[in-house]
Amino acid sequence: MCAELNRKAFENLSYGLYIVTSRNENRLNGQIVNTVIQVTSEPPRVAVIINKKNLTHEYISQRQQFGVSVLEEAAPLTFFGPFGFRSGRDYDKLSKVQFKEGTTGCPLVTQYTLSVLEAKVIERIDVGTHTVFIGDAVSSEVLKEGAPLTYHYYRENLKGKPSRYSPTYIPTK
Amino acid sequence: MCAELNRKAFENLSYGLYIVTSRNENRLNGQIVNTVIQVTSEPPRVAVIINKKNLTHEYISQRQQFGVSVLEEAAPLTFFGPFGFRSGRDYDKLSKVQFKEGTTGCPLVTQYTLSVLEAKVIERIDVGTHTVFIGDAVSSEVLKEGAPLTYHYYRENLKGKPSRYSPTYIPTK
Repeated sequence: MCAELNRKAFENLSYGLYIVTSRNENRLNGQIVNTVIQVTSEPPRVAVIINKKNLTHEYISQRQQFGVSVLEEAAPLTFFGPFGFRSGRDYDKLSKVQFKEGTTGCPLVTQYTLSVLEAKVIERIDVGTHTVFIGDAVSSEVLKEGAPLTYHYYRENLKGKPSRYSPTYIPTK
Repeated sequence: MCAELNRKAFENLSYGLYIVTSRNENRLNGQIVNTVIQVTSEPPRVAVIINKKNLTHEYISQRQQFGVSVLEEAAPLTFFGPFGFRSGRDYDKLSKVQFKEGTTGCPLVTQYTLSVLEAKVIERIDVGTHTVFIGDAVSSEVLKEGAPLTYHYYRENLKGKPSRYSPTYIPTK
């Protein structure tokens, strides 16, 4: 680790919080991320960054598609917490929430959700522990008006911690 | 354009606002972006997405390094507006603001800034109108405490518009 790196500096970057979903045949999965970003306007393309250890990484890699639910600030930690701190390998995360099937077949969580998007992967970049998936948006819909849940709000008001597999996790040594 | 795409759905994604800088020999430049994102924690890596038409794209491509200033909410539009709406080809944007030279030689704007980062590019991905530059963080520093400027705050409180070259620009037809 370079001595000139202050990890606190990274905490000032701003993010939203999203549920990213995918499917593998009939198995559905989703996880919380703070790493959805629009990369071009014309055509509308989005990127999502996923830890290689996550089941969603496996599903997106296979199916080359993903769904995104943009959560609202009113979403309680009890609702989205399991999407961040439990693995889809031993728990059906979609069983406890409302969702619909998108045009790609990915489940789209609709509860506490402002808008949903779906994307088909056109490129992937290995960045070490994580992969950046870049996708063409193939559907997008606004479900309700409201304030988007941000990572800042999650930390300040819900006293939330980053997942161990998040790009913004700060290791304690 | 797919009929099922509602552009409004993308407006719920959350971003911060940053000045990204680079240099080309003795010429310095910077621009406003909402596209800085941490992609891995170990090692700390960041991505920034830049329009190919921007001078910063040319400078980062040549020098393979960039600087980031995380702006504070108190930053007035008169301060950072020129970084978004003027081109460094005909205007020396750094001439009117306080900055210091980083370890990479990139200028780091220090005014209205919570923290600064520098990165060396390790990978670039062509995503069409824009390039995703991925860099290893080589320095990072907290300059002050405060609330980060978000894209949402910029739109709601400063009545700011997206730049034509932003990934989040919505074309009006």
